[in-house]
Amino acid sequence: MLRGIGDDAAVIRSSPGRTLLLTTDLLAEGIHFDLETATFEDIGYKAAVANLSDIAAMGGTPRYMLVAVAIPPSRTSAEVERLYRGLMRACRPYKVELVGGDTSASRHGLFLSITLTGFAQAGLALTRDGARVGDLLYVTGTLGDSLAGLNLLVTGRKRRIPAGGGSNERHRQYLRYLVDRHLHPTPRIKEGQLLATHRLATAAIDLSDGLSGDLAHVCEESGVGAEIETTALPLSPACRAYAAASRTDPVRLALTGGEDYELLFTISPGNRAKLDRLAQRTGCRFSRIGTVRPKRFGLRLRRGNGSLRRLAIAGYQHFQDLRTIPQGAAWSR
Amino acid sequence: MLRGIGDDAAVIRSSPGRTLLLTTDLLAEGIHFDLETATFEDIGYKAAVANLSDIAAMGGTPRYMLVAVAIPPSRTSAEVERLYRGLMRACRPYKVELVGGDTSASRHGLFLSITLTGFAQAGLALTRDGARVGDLLYVTGTLGDSLAGLNLLVTGRKRRIPAGGGSNERHRQYLRYLVDRHLHPTPRIKEGQLLATHRLATAAIDLSDGLSGDLAHVCEESGVGAEIETTALPLSPACRAYAAASRTDPVRLALTGGEDYELLFTISPGNRAKLDRLAQRTGCRFSRIGTVRPKRFGLRLRRGNGSLRRLAIAGYQHFQDLRTIPQGAAWSR
Repeated sequence: MLRGIGDDAAVIRSSPGRTLLLTTDLLAEGIHFDLETATFEDIGYKAAVANLSDIAAMGGTPRYMLVAVAIPPSRTSAEVERLYRGLMRACRPYKVELVGGDTSASRHGLFLSITLTGFAQAGLALTRDGARVGDLLYVTGTLGDSLAGLNLLVTGRKRRIPAGGGSNERHRQYLRYLVDRHLHPTPRIKEGQLLATHRLATAAIDLSDGLSGDLAHVCEESGVGAEIETTALPLSPACRAYAAASRTDPVRLALTGGEDYELLFTISPGNRAKLDRLAQRTGCRFSRIGTVRPKRFGLRLRRGNGSLRRLAIAGYQHFQDLRTIPQGAAWSR
Repeated sequence: MLRGIGDDAAVIRSSPGRTLLLTTDLLAEGIHFDLETATFEDIGYKAAVANLSDIAAMGGTPRYMLVAVAIPPSRTSAEVERLYRGLMRACRPYKVELVGGDTSASRHGLFLSITLTGFAQAGLALTRDGARVGDLLYVTGTLGDSLAGLNLLVTGRKRRIPAGGGSNERHRQYLRYLVDRHLHPTPRIKEGQLLATHRLATAAIDLSDGLSGDLAHVCEESGVGAEIETTALPLSPACRAYAAASRTDPVRLALTGGEDYELLFTISPGNRAKLDRLAQRTGCRFSRIGTVRPKRFGLRLRRGNGSLRRLAIAGYQHFQDLRTIPQGAAWSR
């Protein structure tokens, strides 16, 4: 970094052997975030993670962030400061520097635009288009936690956590875990870098829209189909407990829940043992969830009983649709 | 450019000997633009110019653009397409490529976020902090045209162009010129590159907020003061005619009018002849408007009669404040 805030543009030194990664996001109040279910600090934190996660999905190292905020008259400068504090808190573990940005007025609602640069070793950036028929499908971490956490935030403020088996203390732990997974997701920077530097992933994407939607992106870019084994989907104990208590299909949470910010990636079958060893050595969680199929196969789910059915692809609508769903209805279908 | 739209981040090859420039802008409907005085294509065009101009002010070559748009439900996809058409039209002369972006919903108003990368030769990027006492102050082009054009758009739709001397045909030409300068400003890419590669400018900034505000930025970053000679401010014949007809002080238009997107720069006095020769050879217009003074001098205007007065610094409020000013009042003070 040669120059940052205080000039017309940030000036960044480039290094031989490295390619620049560049990603941008525009987040709108009432669409991507909601001040009833998240604080300003939460919003800043998650906005940063959404961009950090894009760099993770490329196997890169995030580096410089530019932020622009449009602020409605009803908001105070203290609130904007809290937003920046959340942004910086999310960036700190990765030593990402805030190098520029802009604050302006908005007539209605808060808008937040983030641009993040990163670097990858030349030729090693992970892309969406390299999945080949026969490759194995993997995800990092666990799925569906963020959607469960969001639903608890939207409905739980009134209803508290749904009743179910187990102790009250464990329920409180689950509640905290799911809400935290929604408000403070972890960008899988380390996992993405490992997959890139070990040349393991043939394709990768981060799960911002939900597994079914993001898998569709990879399949489209790679010109392939895919089969997901529902019994292989990694679910946290908290998500399972939430699903049981709210009579929700946990597979549905895992498939449609957005904002998990886990990585979905494919590897050649010959690299399976290598990936397992890497997981053991690094403590990273990689779960095999299916197989890449020919394009004509489409996207299908294999149920525990062996039956196959077509995967419905619904883009994740962040929090906004939940508002219009009667409480509980979303989980009981 | 290695990869563009369709992945998590754009992947950009870096070259030895070049530094990366990065700038971002968030534009809000009702604050930075208004659909009553500009079409979607105009808005896209000018949003692109605002960012191109930031790269110009660094002496750089613009290269890749990322765009994110948040669209209220009232807008159609055809309108968004026109916005993109305007963006691309402004980028085409500079071979800037659109390499990524995002379209999402907005509850209220259109928001547009643009990120632009560029390159400068290592060590030659122009910055705001290099002005030294005794340096000469210059601007490119002419000043105040954009504000005159905006005022014509806001009030002229009802009042038409203010009456005055001269033929009707010339008045129509002036009207078109001023409105075009407001809607389709020219980013001074070529001028910025010349100043950088010939190592002429000690500091530079683009005039987005108006001469008085942007000069204050340069003086603050450089730790200096400045004296502007009002008689030296370059004014177009159209701006002079508009000022006369609307009984406005043209100096006021030049000092406070934003969005001219001309460059303000400083050079060492020893380089004056070199700059003059460069202007002659390239056809670029560079006007000397004053001198860099010590910090304690502050910012002052020297009038034609030799008197000095303090420069009032008012940040340009884009179109929004004009709405609340009684017609004509802004120009008759």
